[in-house]
Amino acid sequence: MPNILEKFAKMATENAPGQEARHDDGHLHTIMVGDVLPGEPVDFSHGDVDAHAPTPGAREIWNEGYDAGGCQAYTEYRGLAEIRDGVARRLAAFTGAPVDPVHELIITPGTQGALFLALGATVDTGTKVAIIEPDYFANRKLVTFFGGTILPVGLRYQGADDETGLDLEALEQAFQGGAEVLVFSNPNNPTGFVYSQHEIQAMAKLAAQYSVTVVADQLYSRLLYSDAQFTHFRACDTCPKNVITIMGPSKTESLSGFRLGVAFGTAAIVDRMEKLQAVVSLRAAGYNQRVLETWFNEPEGWMADRVAQHQAIRDDLLQIFNSAGLPTTIPQAGSYLFPRLPELTVSPVDFVRLLRLQAGVIVTPGSEFAPWTANSVRLNFSQDHAKAVAAAKRIVTMVERYKQ
Amino acid sequence: MPNILEKFAKMATENAPGQEARHDDGHLHTIMVGDVLPGEPVDFSHGDVDAHAPTPGAREIWNEGYDAGGCQAYTEYRGLAEIRDGVARRLAAFTGAPVDPVHELIITPGTQGALFLALGATVDTGTKVAIIEPDYFANRKLVTFFGGTILPVGLRYQGADDETGLDLEALEQAFQGGAEVLVFSNPNNPTGFVYSQHEIQAMAKLAAQYSVTVVADQLYSRLLYSDAQFTHFRACDTCPKNVITIMGPSKTESLSGFRLGVAFGTAAIVDRMEKLQAVVSLRAAGYNQRVLETWFNEPEGWMADRVAQHQAIRDDLLQIFNSAGLPTTIPQAGSYLFPRLPELTVSPVDFVRLLRLQAGVIVTPGSEFAPWTANSVRLNFSQDHAKAVAAAKRIVTMVERYKQ
Repeated sequence: MPNILEKFAKMATENAPGQEARHDDGHLHTIMVGDVLPGEPVDFSHGDVDAHAPTPGAREIWNEGYDAGGCQAYTEYRGLAEIRDGVARRLAAFTGAPVDPVHELIITPGTQGALFLALGATVDTGTKVAIIEPDYFANRKLVTFFGGTILPVGLRYQGADDETGLDLEALEQAFQGGAEVLVFSNPNNPTGFVYSQHEIQAMAKLAAQYSVTVVADQLYSRLLYSDAQFTHFRACDTCPKNVITIMGPSKTESLSGFRLGVAFGTAAIVDRMEKLQAVVSLRAAGYNQRVLETWFNEPEGWMADRVAQHQAIRDDLLQIFNSAGLPTTIPQAGSYLFPRLPELTVSPVDFVRLLRLQAGVIVTPGSEFAPWTANSVRLNFSQDHAKAVAAAKRIVTMVERYKQ
Repeated sequence: MPNILEKFAKMATENAPGQEARHDDGHLHTIMVGDVLPGEPVDFSHGDVDAHAPTPGAREIWNEGYDAGGCQAYTEYRGLAEIRDGVARRLAAFTGAPVDPVHELIITPGTQGALFLALGATVDTGTKVAIIEPDYFANRKLVTFFGGTILPVGLRYQGADDETGLDLEALEQAFQGGAEVLVFSNPNNPTGFVYSQHEIQAMAKLAAQYSVTVVADQLYSRLLYSDAQFTHFRACDTCPKNVITIMGPSKTESLSGFRLGVAFGTAAIVDRMEKLQAVVSLRAAGYNQRVLETWFNEPEGWMADRVAQHQAIRDDLLQIFNSAGLPTTIPQAGSYLFPRLPELTVSPVDFVRLLRLQAGVIVTPGSEFAPWTANSVRLNFSQDHAKAVAAAKRIVTMVERYKQ
């Protein structure tokens, strides 16, 4: 039992998005400076699906699924065959490489579910896993849970370094050091950095050379800004044998409330993922699966509008943070901003809690993404435009207030 | 990597309910005896939610959840606080012991999700786990996945033995042998056996004495027949410190398509389960959570009708199997029947596949529930009454055809 307690101690969710309701913030009143800043609250820890509504028709298609009854309630563990057919075809077109709907795709409870199953199917006690830092916080927690060993590989990003990009030498060292699995998000979470074609090709070549299994989390790859180009890892010329790509309609499409994701790639891994899904939660909720019919099937122009709206919010927030001297990577895709804060008179985690109490602003502490990014905060800027701008200004005011 | 392949080899889903679409049944044509039996197909591997419709109002309440928008899409990982409030109050009344909605309850993606999280929060490499045999197949698979060791404890049930009930001496031996966790379903899956008050009290006392954590899967405890009495483990006089009870509206209430379950009990375990949920699938699908408002809140008389309908089907099927000389425990609760078949000229697994091909009947092979129950099959009799009766008769015909 002591082991399991240690393991779970490393999986803390205290500072995770959405868990604010469980905080005890009593001590903050002793370190608080100044009054409450007026303004409408903004929760930057996740996107606002009220400001950016779910894909048109999602509700109607869900109701059709409910009407379909038992055949939609009970599907294969990997999801209903007809739905997998259409999704596989559309994902093949999007990523530029074929997807066999029978053997190479599984529908999961959210993209989080896909990530859990992919790592559960490839990481066991002692498995060495190359993890990019900074990157999505669950990557490290999952490796810990499955008993694997983390081999961190640094990502230099604008705002933190002069040079940007993946440290390919460090990646090769991790592979030489015995990494059997590489997991990374592209666009990078939390910075919005998109890997260059050169980087992706080099990563694929190295992974093939060292027989590394690659889990590519491309959750946000549809929300690509006009100044960016995206390279799909799975469509590289020299690809490793084992590649799983993860996506889902939870973010860009504001369909998070349905908990839908997919993983697609190497059939043997998808098989193991289905075995694991059978004991984790059987399947993604049956009626909800039907909503995948809307995915990559949106009304004409809808996605372009959504991208343009987000690009406009991005640009306004970047201007606010840059003017205030908070170094911030320009996100090339996705809806995350990761401004770096100066030295403060309070700890970064306390500052994040003060932001909520005094500025009505919820952000995610940078310490969730890498041990060395505690002085940054992550914002999901998929918000009401005007409210987000006002809230970003309040963050700047709070930084001024607590700056050393 | 070899370890993980071995682990997953033990987690086969080939014979699991709902996976029939993935079978290759080519060889069966060489051993097939007789023609196809006419009749409407019945899938006894799960309940028929078209024959027994979801709780009245479920769809309308789901749509209200969707209308509520972001606050319902993004909840705490353990589920929306207001929903937990009501559910905790109603579960306390049902089980006869208090439930703190803030610390002692988590909403999960189905009862399967609750079971996964409960064992993931208590079983680690080397943890010894007492498992009842026969019992729900995922119990053994989950312990295997988490690297634990199974200590089997036999359940004698009508049809298999003259004497019925749990082998309490074997249970104490498992505890003496170092079991730290006990997981069991009550009513028992697959037999429908309900533990007596004496048995539950004795189990609780032993678990308290040996400081064993108990996971009580009471998924079917609401579907209790008129001739039965149910004892809630968590309300025992002498209870162990760590008890998690699992339930959900997926079965009796035909709400499986929503993937909703709950686990309630010891706060420290619920805390770990929430940390695990954060990396497994974040939360039960947000809009779906709203449907828990209907749970233990059904229209007056609705549950009594549902129980009566199932009791009538149970009695007719029992009569068919008993008349044919297939020993079958009388289920005191739930909707499973577990008839024992005589020696056949084909293997039990092939017989199950022949049932599907020749009789249009899907059942679950007994080998899924214990190593020694391969000559039984499990039927979920939550089906259209007339179709179920006709299908049970076809099973008997098939048994006659293949009997040694």
